[in-house]
Amino acid sequence: MPAESPFQTQRDAAAERRGPVTAATIIIIIIIIIMAPAGAKKGILERLDAGEVVIGDGGFVFALEKRGYVKAGPWTPEAAAEHPEAVRQLHREFLRAGSNVMQTFTFYASDDKLENRGHTQTFTGQQINEAACDLAREVADEGDALVAGGVSQTPSYLSCKSQDDVKATFKKQLDVFVKKNVDFLIAEYFEHVEEAEWAVQVLKTTGKPVAATLCIGPEGDLNGVSPGDCAARLVKAGAQIVGVNCHFDPDTSVKTVKMMKEGVEKAGLKAHYMCQPLAYHTPDCNCQGFIDLPEFPFSLEPRILTRWDMQKYARDAYDAGIRYIGGCCGFEPYHVRALAEELAPERGFLPAGSDKHGNWGSGLEMHTKPWVRARARRDYWEKLKPASGRPLCPSMSMPDSWGVTKGHADLMQQKEATSQEQLKALFDKANKGQ
Amino acid sequence: MPAESPFQTQRDAAAERRGPVTAATIIIIIIIIIMAPAGAKKGILERLDAGEVVIGDGGFVFALEKRGYVKAGPWTPEAAAEHPEAVRQLHREFLRAGSNVMQTFTFYASDDKLENRGHTQTFTGQQINEAACDLAREVADEGDALVAGGVSQTPSYLSCKSQDDVKATFKKQLDVFVKKNVDFLIAEYFEHVEEAEWAVQVLKTTGKPVAATLCIGPEGDLNGVSPGDCAARLVKAGAQIVGVNCHFDPDTSVKTVKMMKEGVEKAGLKAHYMCQPLAYHTPDCNCQGFIDLPEFPFSLEPRILTRWDMQKYARDAYDAGIRYIGGCCGFEPYHVRALAEELAPERGFLPAGSDKHGNWGSGLEMHTKPWVRARARRDYWEKLKPASGRPLCPSMSMPDSWGVTKGHADLMQQKEATSQEQLKALFDKANKGQ
Amino acid sequence: MPAESPFQTQRDAAAERRGPVTAATIIIIIIIIIMAPAGAKKGILERLDAGEVVIGDGGFVFALEKRGYVKAGPWTPEAAAEHPEAVRQLHREFLRAGSNVMQTFTFYASDDKLENRGHTQTFTGQQINEAACDLAREVADEGDALVAGGVSQTPSYLSCKSQDDVKATFKKQLDVFVKKNVDFLIAEYFEHVEEAEWAVQVLKTTGKPVAATLCIGPEGDLNGVSPGDCAARLVKAGAQIVGVNCHFDPDTSVKTVKMMKEGVEKAGLKAHYMCQPLAYHTPDCNCQGFIDLPEFPFSLEPRILTRWDMQKYARDAYDAGIRYIGGCCGFEPYHVRALAEELAPERGFLPAGSDKHGNWGSGLEMHTKPWVRARARRDYWEKLKPASGRPLCPSMSMPDSWGVTKGHADLMQQKEATSQEQLKALFDKANKGQ
Amino acid sequence: MPAESPFQTQRDAAAERRGPVTAATIIIIIIIIIMAPAGAKKGILERLDAGEVVIGDGGFVFALEKRGYVKAGPWTPEAAAEHPEAVRQLHREFLRAGSNVMQTFTFYASDDKLENRGHTQTFTGQQINEAACDLAREVADEGDALVAGGVSQTPSYLSCKSQDDVKATFKKQLDVFVKKNVDFLIAEYFEHVEEAEWAVQVLKTTGKPVAATLCIGPEGDLNGVSPGDCAARLVKAGAQIVGVNCHFDPDTSVKTVKMMKEGVEKAGLKAHYMCQPLAYHTPDCNCQGFIDLPEFPFSLEPRILTRWDMQKYARDAYDAGIRYIGGCCGFEPYHVRALAEELAPERGFLPAGSDKHGNWGSGLEMHTKPWVRARARRDYWEKLKPASGRPLCPSMSMPDSWGVTKGHADLMQQKEATSQEQLKALFDKANKGQ
Repeated sequence: MPAESPFQTQRDAAAERRGPVTAATIIIIIIIIIMAPAGAKKGILERLDAGEVVIGDGGFVFALEKRGYVKAGPWTPEAAAEHPEAVRQLHREFLRAGSNVMQTFTFYASDDKLENRGHTQTFTGQQINEAACDLAREVADEGDALVAGGVSQTPSYLSCKSQDDVKATFKKQLDVFVKKNVDFLIAEYFEHVEEAEWAVQVLKTTGKPVAATLCIGPEGDLNGVSPGDCAARLVKAGAQIVGVNCHFDPDTSVKTVKMMKEGVEKAGLKAHYMCQPLAYHTPDCNCQGFIDLPEFPFSLEPRILTRWDMQKYARDAYDAGIRYIGGCCGFEPYHVRALAEELAPERGFLPAGSDKHGNWGSGLEMHTKPWVRARARRDYWEKLKPASGRPLCPSMSMPDSWGVTKGHADLMQQKEATSQEQLKALFDKANKGQ
Repeated sequence: MPAESPFQTQRDAAAERRGPVTAATIIIIIIIIIMAPAGAKKGILERLDAGEVVIGDGGFVFALEKRGYVKAGPWTPEAAAEHPEAVRQLHREFLRAGSNVMQTFTFYASDDKLENRGHTQTFTGQQINEAACDLAREVADEGDALVAGGVSQTPSYLSCKSQDDVKATFKKQLDVFVKKNVDFLIAEYFEHVEEAEWAVQVLKTTGKPVAATLCIGPEGDLNGVSPGDCAARLVKAGAQIVGVNCHFDPDTSVKTVKMMKEGVEKAGLKAHYMCQPLAYHTPDCNCQGFIDLPEFPFSLEPRILTRWDMQKYARDAYDAGIRYIGGCCGFEPYHVRALAEELAPERGFLPAGSDKHGNWGSGLEMHTKPWVRARARRDYWEKLKPASGRPLCPSMSMPDSWGVTKGHADLMQQKEATSQEQLKALFDKANKGQ
Repeated sequence: MPAESPFQTQRDAAAERRGPVTAATIIIIIIIIIMAPAGAKKGILERLDAGEVVIGDGGFVFALEKRGYVKAGPWTPEAAAEHPEAVRQLHREFLRAGSNVMQTFTFYASDDKLENRGHTQTFTGQQINEAACDLAREVADEGDALVAGGVSQTPSYLSCKSQDDVKATFKKQLDVFVKKNVDFLIAEYFEHVEEAEWAVQVLKTTGKPVAATLCIGPEGDLNGVSPGDCAARLVKAGAQIVGVNCHFDPDTSVKTVKMMKEGVEKAGLKAHYMCQPLAYHTPDCNCQGFIDLPEFPFSLEPRILTRWDMQKYARDAYDAGIRYIGGCCGFEPYHVRALAEELAPERGFLPAGSDKHGNWGSGLEMHTKPWVRARARRDYWEKLKPASGRPLCPSMSMPDSWGVTKGHADLMQQKEATSQEQLKALFDKANKGQ
Repeated sequence: MPAESPFQTQRDAAAERRGPVTAATIIIIIIIIIMAPAGAKKGILERLDAGEVVIGDGGFVFALEKRGYVKAGPWTPEAAAEHPEAVRQLHREFLRAGSNVMQTFTFYASDDKLENRGHTQTFTGQQINEAACDLAREVADEGDALVAGGVSQTPSYLSCKSQDDVKATFKKQLDVFVKKNVDFLIAEYFEHVEEAEWAVQVLKTTGKPVAATLCIGPEGDLNGVSPGDCAARLVKAGAQIVGVNCHFDPDTSVKTVKMMKEGVEKAGLKAHYMCQPLAYHTPDCNCQGFIDLPEFPFSLEPRILTRWDMQKYARDAYDAGIRYIGGCCGFEPYHVRALAEELAPERGFLPAGSDKHGNWGSGLEMHTKPWVRARARRDYWEKLKPASGRPLCPSMSMPDSWGVTKGHADLMQQKEATSQEQLKALFDKANKGQ
């Protein structure tokens, strides 16, 4: 049965302003102003405390790698300064798709990382961080979105630098976020809860709301601390929102956040929960997540989630009590749109981008071929088991299983590319391990 | 072994101009000016006659559907007028990836199509076509690319309108292309060679070079005319470049163009060859192509080609004597970049976008984890058989097999969405057919 | 819906006689005698001329390899003399399953083959052939089955011996068949139609009915002679029944026999058709069949057909006009039973073995768990897409593609096992070929 | 590299005696007599106490269903009386393959089961049990094998009969085993440890060695008792050998027995360990095992283990400290042969059946085609990931998840086949559950 939507689409006011202005547009802008008065945006905690769903955005490094602005390997965000139009456009697409949060594109923008990963210093870390903040703010102001500044795992920690050194690294990025007055802060992508605690402690000094996510699965952090214990420690350190991001698929991630919630409640604490998983199916991962899959990072395509997989994720996350629901690597704008469409009944409206979609693909009702028109229904897409078109490929892989963690010699960071000698030693080790 | 590139990257001059200008940038701009003097671009036939490789761009409707600007079903290009920044950005990404052609985003922008497919008339067909030409020209001027205007299969033809009516429809779009002075013309996405011949005849009246592509596989057009005969007829109609686009994967498409080449040569004719396949693996398609796969259009993700699949395609196409090598639905900028990287030895340079990649993923040499660094080599990616992460899904599907063609009652176009009665009749027919 | 059978089961009279004799048994024996009067069996041509379905048996070498009596590699049938109880038991199981033909277990029992393939000469070729005839006759007499003596492809032919030499080899086996008075003869498993013609010519000298099968697919024999031409040549050589056996799965084999039928009819000839395919799915084979699949012969398990696949095969073969329907490598007794159950409506009775099955698994109605009982229905099994339980494995393989044929140096037969030097040369050749 | 075996093959003395007796044979018989003096067989505990490997046999009901002598659904063993030649032959094949144990074919031969499962009473339970004992003894005497009598899960228990009633049922079968003087006893195929304890208690009254296996996986018995606790309880009840059989694949089963071993050792107890898993890959099972897979029991073919999978299993089991290593449903003689070949270094000899195989398929050295000869090496088969030839099928299934256990209304046993009303109620329940 063709899907009919009872929801009004949230109009894309700012984008309209950039197009030719007609009488109709003006009226819509007025409506928007009524709906979301400028300067009166609710904060992240206000929304969550009120039980509202907050739709996050998707991961920038993978999306911009595909568009040609980020280098896989270093994964650094110099594009914020180098190619602002590309970063702005991606922000805008996520906004149109329904995102309530514009994360500053500052992943791995700590100075130690930029230096380690071979970034040629056309721009300083500060320039990159500032440009990223400006872009996020510019687009957030085009709709009902907040700006979040983020810090993440540092090479300093992996190389066993002191707590003070690591905290100083976070502080440097934080100074920019404070100066640019972001709305809240996220400590994200930590494999070790200890480093995440340090990050939360630094972020808390600003008085802004703090969210914290680990890139872990049900087996816990790389030292084996369980998700429940990790979450309780992060709440104690001051995070008001806790959860996971990256490294695992939605199924695994929702399961992990459930374990976090149980841990927080068992400890007699309270928190909000967030989930920002991969847009890749990873049923075959071990504790190190998709990094250890042989397909990472350049052959993950067959694992990409469909929009229907995403609707299932949004529902599962909601049912698990998670209210900050977003994504990470692999998410494209249409994935975020699917989250917003699935949760339209709870939120009361569709995102602007749904003008170009319609519930359960109802746009297909206007396809040239009638048998394709017949696919414009939920039942069709929910039941479909999509083929890979790759009969020579398996459905699962054996992940690498290095199992090394912070402080291990193999993880000591260096500025140079790996040498042939280092690679040889590595292969020898791998062969012995088999 | 880590991949080292002997090629200089073609610098992204225009983009640089938009960023902060440093001394280094100025020097690079000077170099670019030497390399590709403004106003002196070679035409499409000059390039092909000289044996040069011409890298095409990718399909806009699928890419922009994922970004939220095109509606699947109607697939119309009103975004050229509605959201020019999004269309410009995609052009720019393809340019950076190495494209030598900016196709105007005018697919399905004939008036009969816009009307049939329920486009709310905020913009006229003429406005959309003109906006698309301006965007293509603007970005083409940022690098070494030509602008191509395109016309494609019309609802008029499928509904059995007269040759004059169909040609008048092409003429209307063509008037815009002439006014905007595009560099050459493409008649593309035709399921019936007859309609493509008509299109070529109209396009030839301009005196500009004409390319023509059918969306067919080795079984030929929907009336069963073989690829070889189709190609010979198109050349006789006046096309200087012939080939296929859309509907099938690279393997199938290269095979089909080979058959076209044989047909042209057997007929004692001469032509250049082009190939713009899907970025989806479709070994299980029948003659109607990916439209008839149950996954079309919203669950094709597991079929997406990797960049390595694309390198293989570029090599195969080159070896088959095809020199105009591009893509269609499913292509993202990184797919085009892979074509340009594979053919860098032949072309003598890497695209600007390779600054953010490196041959065979050499950027991984700077990854945090040494075992991921060890993946920065051709041998690794070429041999990998990527898993789908979907153990409950098959590797192939059974396509629908309606087998109807032009003039069939099921293909008569209508302005309204399919009604429940129409769908019921359709399901009854499908069930009987099984 | 549980499957009910309207057919009487053909009782297993001889087997019953070997068990304790009760009053009930005696009555059944009487019934059997009425149904199939001893000594009055119809010949193979009488049956086929009358339009009856003849159910063949399955391949012995693969079945007995799994049971421990045949060595993969040589594939010789010395077990007929060494372990008669094992061979007799397999005959009996096929008979109970519904087979109307007991092929003598004389595959590769020509003297040149026995010698070449390292058979330690505990038994002479004549002893083996005679023992095989006696076993087939003994079991055939327990039911309504005929005995067929068979000859197949010789090492002599592959090594370019003369027509006379090759024919002399056939003659030697034939002398035993004549002495033991088999009911008809089969020339089977030929990759080259020329050698099959020679075999038919020799077999015809006996005056007995002659069937001839090639182990080819739609691409024809190894010299590229089409299935249609092959079949016409075999009919001209004197074969009354033509078809294929081994090397390909049922889908491919039925398709090939259809092409044979068309060829025979086009040549204005007449014949009966037979089909004895593999019980392995081989959609990925090239012209050399399953030998060239990397899984041959020890990892073919995931390809084994289910009983439901077999029912589909029986129906497809019947619908294609094939009336002699049997199997080859991979067939187990329950596969033959499935053929007999599918064609029970046409034949008017179920095989004795169906006492232990019931149509579409109706025996499940008495399973302990009610949800397993619910599987006792055709609809359930027909729609099921059975999983491999092997997520690390692909669904198809790339076959080896040696493409060598009779007379090629690589095919010259030798008595010794391959030496290390020979293998090295082979690997070098394979690597270059890639 | 072709596999060379340093081991002497254990000759198949009894089988030889049935063939023509030559001088060579006599010599071999003498050797055998030296190796395994008649009448002096070591008992099961003697062997295990001495650290010897004991190779079990495979499951009879599945193997004989395929051969046409057992009905899937009831799964009762009346063939022992009805078709003794078929049962004898299967025993003999397992013996030749290397089995040291002939289990009497008495599975589900308790009177309550025979009655419940619709067995038409041509033979009494006692007749069947006695015939099965005689066949096992006859073949065991042809080689170095012991006879084991077995009892298994009863309908009485599932229907909540009293402990006394259940024990009386075991006692009835046991009386036959005592009368026929089997060498030891096995309580096998129990889903609830409580019923297994009762069985062990009854079997212990005979003074014979007792083994006990549950059909459970790592999640424990159907009441959730962990494998470790189950094993400790069975040892306390008197079992000298504990382990698992049926329901799960080798990987899962070895893992479960490891957990049992840990449980026994933690409880300060001592035992020997045995493992008799399925020959089907079941990575997708839930706690109820393969019964709940949609493919059970008629479409399990794609899951069948190869001989190489079996060698891996034998090695894994040995490394886990398991010394009684056999199989269950799906095992064919060649699977047992693979166990014996893998453990030939530990046992010091190859089984008789290896005459027709050779280590790692060395018989292929004599194949007609040299590229197949090149497959006669361990490296080739160990690395191969065999394809299913089924591109339309998935690699895993979703098992049914009824989760009911002893005493649940759905498990109350009845003599009649399920009625349409019962099935309807069941489907309604299943649909609601989804």
